[in-house]
Amino acid sequence: MSNKLRLGIVGVGNMGRSHINSCAEGRLPEIEITAVADIDESKFAYAREKIPGVKCFNTATEMFRSGLCDAALIATPHYFHPPMAEEAMRAGLHVMSEKPAGVYTKAVRELIEYTETSDKTYAIMFNQRTNCLYRKMKEIIDSGKYGQMKRVSWIITDWFRTQQYYNSGSWRATWAGEGGGVMLNQCPHQLDLWQWLCGMPVKVRAFCHEGKWHDIEVEDDVTIYAEYANGATGTFITTTGDCPGSNRLEITLDRAKLLCDFINPYSTEQKLWIYELEGSTQEFINDSSEGFARLKGEWKEVETDGKNEQHVGVLNAFAAHILRGEPLVAEGREGINGLMISNAAFLSSWLGETVSLPIDEDLFLRKLQEKINGSTHKKVVNEHVEGDMSSTF
Amino acid sequence: MSNKLRLGIVGVGNMGRSHINSCAEGRLPEIEITAVADIDESKFAYAREKIPGVKCFNTATEMFRSGLCDAALIATPHYFHPPMAEEAMRAGLHVMSEKPAGVYTKAVRELIEYTETSDKTYAIMFNQRTNCLYRKMKEIIDSGKYGQMKRVSWIITDWFRTQQYYNSGSWRATWAGEGGGVMLNQCPHQLDLWQWLCGMPVKVRAFCHEGKWHDIEVEDDVTIYAEYANGATGTFITTTGDCPGSNRLEITLDRAKLLCDFINPYSTEQKLWIYELEGSTQEFINDSSEGFARLKGEWKEVETDGKNEQHVGVLNAFAAHILRGEPLVAEGREGINGLMISNAAFLSSWLGETVSLPIDEDLFLRKLQEKINGSTHKKVVNEHVEGDMSSTF
Repeated sequence: MSNKLRLGIVGVGNMGRSHINSCAEGRLPEIEITAVADIDESKFAYAREKIPGVKCFNTATEMFRSGLCDAALIATPHYFHPPMAEEAMRAGLHVMSEKPAGVYTKAVRELIEYTETSDKTYAIMFNQRTNCLYRKMKEIIDSGKYGQMKRVSWIITDWFRTQQYYNSGSWRATWAGEGGGVMLNQCPHQLDLWQWLCGMPVKVRAFCHEGKWHDIEVEDDVTIYAEYANGATGTFITTTGDCPGSNRLEITLDRAKLLCDFINPYSTEQKLWIYELEGSTQEFINDSSEGFARLKGEWKEVETDGKNEQHVGVLNAFAAHILRGEPLVAEGREGINGLMISNAAFLSSWLGETVSLPIDEDLFLRKLQEKINGSTHKKVVNEHVEGDMSSTF
Repeated sequence: MSNKLRLGIVGVGNMGRSHINSCAEGRLPEIEITAVADIDESKFAYAREKIPGVKCFNTATEMFRSGLCDAALIATPHYFHPPMAEEAMRAGLHVMSEKPAGVYTKAVRELIEYTETSDKTYAIMFNQRTNCLYRKMKEIIDSGKYGQMKRVSWIITDWFRTQQYYNSGSWRATWAGEGGGVMLNQCPHQLDLWQWLCGMPVKVRAFCHEGKWHDIEVEDDVTIYAEYANGATGTFITTTGDCPGSNRLEITLDRAKLLCDFINPYSTEQKLWIYELEGSTQEFINDSSEGFARLKGEWKEVETDGKNEQHVGVLNAFAAHILRGEPLVAEGREGINGLMISNAAFLSSWLGETVSLPIDEDLFLRKLQEKINGSTHKKVVNEHVEGDMSSTF
């Protein structure tokens, strides 16, 4: 292997182009994009302009077998993520998958089983894990210093999209093409961060509203209620229909409370605060001799390293991992967790009942297939309307 | 009638004493507390010290029939609110009921039916309705200028109580004595404000955790998910177990978003902000030619009249209503609405399913009776521990 990772990109859509730009701008010093693959040849001009000499293939298979790539970045529609990842690994390539890991956990589980037989790296683009605020929250929670989680509440409603967004691709917001809406396309980041910070819930009751704000057949408004093994509870609220949205995450621990939110309503800058208690809330509840007493503590802002490298951080760590064994931002197999939550949320909403995790994967797949088979939605598609994606994923 | 309203108070507990203090401090200029009633004679000394010459009765019935009172304030344990109110009105008195209106809607509905045959006033102590922030929110929403509600989220978890609080009275936090926990005792204010601002939901799915943080048999941790007739959704999260708690209310409308929260994590002062949009979110979703466009608007702080008169405001309005026909802060019959939400939340949680509103009142009462009959909880009671209540209700 050369001193650069030779990367091939499958899918020159919004995400593929974004990574090509990062490389062309010199922000991926250990990565060389040697090839791209897309079924639509009209996409090649963009790649060739940005990366002179890049090889362009009509199929991913040809690219995988070309000998030009050490690794593949899978930036296709979601359903193709698991089979493309497996095919690339079988061809001897390392894999970086865009999120979500897949549309249904059964496919991702089968992929993970395969990856365990392979010496190739399977990584996933959870770029939000590079955000200093979430990294610091994880460090604080995982330290154990503040005890167990009691409650988590995330209002993450700042994923506003117009109808035109959904009309920009025929696969978008369809059961057959995308396999879901806001939970599959916008929120996989926060669903991953939610489980990364708080662990996996054991029960989920969700309310997924399909085509509520847009003329689409998939969900664009979701409220999830979750319960954890230790009895903690959580809520997760998301939509693509609110303008302006919120992005407020609060996590209550036995000995502290964490709050990640905008500095004030006027600001677009987020901060992390902690309320450190003098002791254990539960012990104080049990032992205080006063009915209305409150355990003392104080709010303070949490300092972080300020780094937030996003996609380039994930890709540079991927290269450093393969070239020198440094740690990944996110192992691909961890992608099943956030997907398990969204699959559980769909299943709960479709069945109208609470579901336990891990879910019945075959039941979920049958229900998803019913959605696909029952689709009567005719989309008005205007493929060529695309916007500035730089701050949207 | 003299130029002051002659008021008798039933129950010289925490709330009764608080109103006695307001009167003794000259904050109720049009009210004269002429009598009190309590089954515990030891409570009379407090009343006599603060209100020289006050008449003390062992039973409410004697006080109602004494001819000393034009109106009665019912500050008994919750189950007695409806029957005491009716008895007072039948004796020819106006009534101010402490919250909640009752424990179950059937009793309150029967009371309301009686009040409709009476010319006496039936009012309820929803003192939080005097808060300038909530009054302003209601004015903004009711103006219709900003369109229909899309979403409401209230995290109201700053009702922290220790075990000692629950041990301070044998009736507290029992199905037989109080009929519930945080939803009946602490949150009736916010449940009322929720419906006052947002209207009544048509469906509720709730998760009520009983004795989660305290050694009690009733709920001390609640998450409610609600749906409205127009499709809007809401969440309401409360507990007496979190320290520190939150009190953040956000309401998304088609043409604006309202946020009521602390100025920042360090502040105990709350403010109201509005994000006024240039138009209708739904029209923008439908009509925008850009996928990632956002409808313009800006945050600004909402000015209010700054008044927040709380209990004395409610009582002074009650006197002015009876003496001169001025408006009440809250009609007693409106008390059934917040109670309907908490009854529905219990029923949903006990049945493990979504319930429609109005609820099946007979079913709820049967289930509540099962809870009372099934009670095995033995409370350690220390009746004489009481704290400073001035900022707790």
